[in-house]
Amino acid sequence: MIITISRQFGSGGRELGKRLADKLGYAYYDKQLVTEIAKHANLNEDYVTSVLESGGFKNYAFTFAHTMPLVSPIPDCATEVLVQQKKVIEAIGKKGNCVIVGRCADVILADKKPLRLFVYANEASKIKRCRERMHDGEDLSDKRILKNAKAIDKGRASFCDLISPLAWDDKNAYDLMINTSDVEIESIVLALAKMIQSLTQQ
Amino acid sequence: MIITISRQFGSGGRELGKRLADKLGYAYYDKQLVTEIAKHANLNEDYVTSVLESGGFKNYAFTFAHTMPLVSPIPDCATEVLVQQKKVIEAIGKKGNCVIVGRCADVILADKKPLRLFVYANEASKIKRCRERMHDGEDLSDKRILKNAKAIDKGRASFCDLISPLAWDDKNAYDLMINTSDVEIESIVLALAKMIQSLTQQ
Repeated sequence: MIITISRQFGSGGRELGKRLADKLGYAYYDKQLVTEIAKHANLNEDYVTSVLESGGFKNYAFTFAHTMPLVSPIPDCATEVLVQQKKVIEAIGKKGNCVIVGRCADVILADKKPLRLFVYANEASKIKRCRERMHDGEDLSDKRILKNAKAIDKGRASFCDLISPLAWDDKNAYDLMINTSDVEIESIVLALAKMIQSLTQQ
Repeated sequence: MIITISRQFGSGGRELGKRLADKLGYAYYDKQLVTEIAKHANLNEDYVTSVLESGGFKNYAFTFAHTMPLVSPIPDCATEVLVQQKKVIEAIGKKGNCVIVGRCADVILADKKPLRLFVYANEASKIKRCRERMHDGEDLSDKRILKNAKAIDKGRASFCDLISPLAWDDKNAYDLMINTSDVEIESIVLALAKMIQSLTQQ
């Protein structure tokens, strides 16, 4: 089972994905991790393969950008990174049993019939979640938070437009759309895990 | 726990609601049943109350329109039926543990924090489901089926516009949106029931 998560900024979708992966005992990959590997894939493909095959990738990858000796400069060509990213997602997809957040993995892995989740929330909820994650000293107005969130979502939608026939937030592109307004991510995750376990056991 | 289901015509939402109620051991009410009671409520309120309180309503109500002696004509005033319908839904809501399909029960029972589901499907799936339910001799083109489905959904959206600040198919009006394209309703119901049981046990 492959689970892909698309999410509005501030909806808690990343946390939901991480917790869901932990709960199900699945590997977890998010946008940053995939991008990071993709960059390195261009440099040292064997390494990426070994990381993906080790299954211990989850914790390792957070640090490998700092520990890996770079044998050539990281390419600054965005297209090349996108191509590598796609390859990385395909490699992850082959292994199965994973949660992938972002990067339109649902579209890239369409032939593997992933369970495609979309996580969203209302504005009040987004503001609350963003405030909880602000760094010390950081202070943004509600208006500014929503403006930033909208800009980030616009970027996600644009990336999706590159490779998908459906719009990023079109419900027809997903199997399940989950509203995280006014609810604890942890309790949704527990319930979702039960649901997914039932689907995989059928 | 109160579960409300809004659904696109042809998405199998009604079947999903019925099966989910059976699986959870909840009472089941759909648009037709609610309308039927509402009409009669205007005539014989004690009877409706007794039916609602009996819990045996589910099977009984399918026939009571034919067996109940009518003490006065059924009102043809739509507004009156809508008012009665609202009262009936509120009475159902007070009892709890039920699945209500249609009639914007999610909006009417908002203060009870129901689990609000929206069930949808792609066009190919809707056509397939509608064909499976056609009567002998009935033959409609795909185009006609979709046109009918669209008209019915438009009516549902209009009714919702009467009482809700959000559009009928606005994802922010729901907790969970479920895509039934290319899947068996039965397997979704099994998985959903596990999810809901987890939510009610927390």
